[in-house]
Amino acid sequence: MSINNSAKDRQERFDHGMAVLSSIDGESGEKVIDSLADISPELGHQVVAWAFGEMYSRPQLAPRDRQLVTLGMLTALGGCEPQLDVHINAALNVGLTPDEIVEALLHAAVYCGMPKALNATFVAKRVFTDRGLLPGDLGQ
Amino acid sequence: MSINNSAKDRQERFDHGMAVLSSIDGESGEKVIDSLADISPELGHQVVAWAFGEMYSRPQLAPRDRQLVTLGMLTALGGCEPQLDVHINAALNVGLTPDEIVEALLHAAVYCGMPKALNATFVAKRVFTDRGLLPGDLGQ
Amino acid sequence: MSINNSAKDRQERFDHGMAVLSSIDGESGEKVIDSLADISPELGHQVVAWAFGEMYSRPQLAPRDRQLVTLGMLTALGGCEPQLDVHINAALNVGLTPDEIVEALLHAAVYCGMPKALNATFVAKRVFTDRGLLPGDLGQ
Amino acid sequence: MSINNSAKDRQERFDHGMAVLSSIDGESGEKVIDSLADISPELGHQVVAWAFGEMYSRPQLAPRDRQLVTLGMLTALGGCEPQLDVHINAALNVGLTPDEIVEALLHAAVYCGMPKALNATFVAKRVFTDRGLLPGDLGQ
Amino acid sequence: MSINNSAKDRQERFDHGMAVLSSIDGESGEKVIDSLADISPELGHQVVAWAFGEMYSRPQLAPRDRQLVTLGMLTALGGCEPQLDVHINAALNVGLTPDEIVEALLHAAVYCGMPKALNATFVAKRVFTDRGLLPGDLGQ
Amino acid sequence: MSINNSAKDRQERFDHGMAVLSSIDGESGEKVIDSLADISPELGHQVVAWAFGEMYSRPQLAPRDRQLVTLGMLTALGGCEPQLDVHINAALNVGLTPDEIVEALLHAAVYCGMPKALNATFVAKRVFTDRGLLPGDLGQ
Repeated sequence: MSINNSAKDRQERFDHGMAVLSSIDGESGEKVIDSLADISPELGHQVVAWAFGEMYSRPQLAPRDRQLVTLGMLTALGGCEPQLDVHINAALNVGLTPDEIVEALLHAAVYCGMPKALNATFVAKRVFTDRGLLPGDLGQ
Repeated sequence: MSINNSAKDRQERFDHGMAVLSSIDGESGEKVIDSLADISPELGHQVVAWAFGEMYSRPQLAPRDRQLVTLGMLTALGGCEPQLDVHINAALNVGLTPDEIVEALLHAAVYCGMPKALNATFVAKRVFTDRGLLPGDLGQ
Repeated sequence: MSINNSAKDRQERFDHGMAVLSSIDGESGEKVIDSLADISPELGHQVVAWAFGEMYSRPQLAPRDRQLVTLGMLTALGGCEPQLDVHINAALNVGLTPDEIVEALLHAAVYCGMPKALNATFVAKRVFTDRGLLPGDLGQ
Repeated sequence: MSINNSAKDRQERFDHGMAVLSSIDGESGEKVIDSLADISPELGHQVVAWAFGEMYSRPQLAPRDRQLVTLGMLTALGGCEPQLDVHINAALNVGLTPDEIVEALLHAAVYCGMPKALNATFVAKRVFTDRGLLPGDLGQ
Repeated sequence: MSINNSAKDRQERFDHGMAVLSSIDGESGEKVIDSLADISPELGHQVVAWAFGEMYSRPQLAPRDRQLVTLGMLTALGGCEPQLDVHINAALNVGLTPDEIVEALLHAAVYCGMPKALNATFVAKRVFTDRGLLPGDLGQ
Repeated sequence: MSINNSAKDRQERFDHGMAVLSSIDGESGEKVIDSLADISPELGHQVVAWAFGEMYSRPQLAPRDRQLVTLGMLTALGGCEPQLDVHINAALNVGLTPDEIVEALLHAAVYCGMPKALNATFVAKRVFTDRGLLPGDLGQ
């Protein structure tokens, strides 16, 4: 029992989502979608068309706020270091400062414990290094 | 091998933390500390003196931002509905609107899945009802 | 940056999803959607229009197979007993026998450990009792 | 392809496991097995014959040590409060003092975060109250 | 207090389990058991004799159905990519098609969220590539 | 609203914690703190000053007992293999034997399931190999 989505409607949703994803995640997000093309194009479509196109772009919560929630979730879930990589990049793209990101992961220590906070912080270390933010001035 | 904390220093840390907890969590947080008095006063002390007094009060991230991270973490962890109750209250106290809180939990559906997002949203329903925000105007 | 979904298109998606949900989850699923109306109508919309209308109804995996995957996930996640209630009901609706459901949760003991398998099994006990399947003949 | 266990061998394994379970878990454990009789007697059999009869009784780790590991696991898993109830009782039965149990759950705050440590501690509060250990002298 | 298992009985259980494991998991499962020989031969024995020999081989649920439950559990648990590798291989061995496996992991996005669904899907990508199923025809 | 900790008091707490950490974790723990210096010196400070200096050193539970709880927690959390590496080393340092550690992780199979028990056991395999305990005599 499957709805008959017009191909045009489906493509529009994808294109809109891709515009959102590119502005938020940039390259690291686009790479994930590309790597899904051979194994699960539908999962790629849903990440783009639904997760970004329909959910992320809602005006009820700003991208900066969404990324704060996401940093909390990915730290708490554990084992989601690949996604933390993408989303720490996204956090920087939407206006969180490196210090704010590091502080959010420190805050996580209280609620998730030290192991998960450490694992997330080391992902931030890699991302910041790749973006030339380390070695540098993280003022704490 | 235990450090010899002066009792005065320990009390000061507790008092400072209690001031922070009361301003953020209000009554629902104070109740948690009271209920720990007979079973684990040390856990109560650490929640107050360390979690609030030392970690939460750091200026590097504003309380509103901290609560966004916390809503993400508690939704993702699962089984932390008692703490979601306290922290949804806290989120309202620090300036997040009911709509923003509901949207943060909707955003969680993408990263944690529908079950966890639903469970967290139903805690918000109870908190908002208790605070007279439901039935009411949640503009979506 | 939000796509301009026509209201008609949005309603069609919802109606299609509701048809799928009702055939799979029956009453227990419909109750969940109703209880979201005041707190998060958008989450209700997404459960219906996306989770059921767009994802569940895909022909690539039959509902009986989907419910087996879901029983595994909800047992493993922990803290999702409300959803296990809905989905054990759904499992019966789509043709899994009570014995197969019980066996799936027993199988979970190997991969998730005894605590989670026990918690899921006790949800099945409540569901089966409510549906008049207990006391009865579970042949093992 | 199922092995043909003699019924006598199966019964011996069960009886041995029941002896171990009763000495460790006492009444709260026996109740769990009874409540499985109608829904999943095989799960009950495996908890008794395998978990207790074959695994728990191994001499390589003493029951007191096993309970310390278990308190850590059940706190970390989250959503396993029913099992924490049984195992806090078991911990007292095998020689851990109330203070040691409370301290183990406080220790958990560092590794699992405050929410999970709190949820486990409140289970201990209920168990200790039921066993007449609260109100009382927990020396901290 | 340990039961006196005859060595012959213990060996029979192991041999039976090994026959089941080899038919389901094939080489990737056998490798896991071999790698346990020096560190924890007892864990290896239990995986073979109990998990496969006693639990997996029960006729109440077919291997194809068991693998659907397992794919759900391993995706939901997170951090179990090594086991997902073994079990995606097993899923193919017991008659699930590549498309069905990919669809099961897509279905997981609804219940576990996108991160866990993505991580599981990328394990499938590696397994399918190793088995010569990619690049190829996954019809979606 | 931040407490005005004297720098001298803060340094004393750190020094005390470092002494505890070095005696428990040895080199593998010290490396973690060093690697935090550029990304999150405050997280490093809290691990040392709070987690070790204030919490771990409490006399209410001996280090050997603490490590048993920790092995349980890190196995159950999943995705915390880096911390399992540090803490299996610590477990050996505080007097748990290799056999006791392996048995604790086998015990975990009952409560966390086979996947998590396996993942933890393979970390032990690496740690023991690095410490020259494998190949060797693990008597089981």
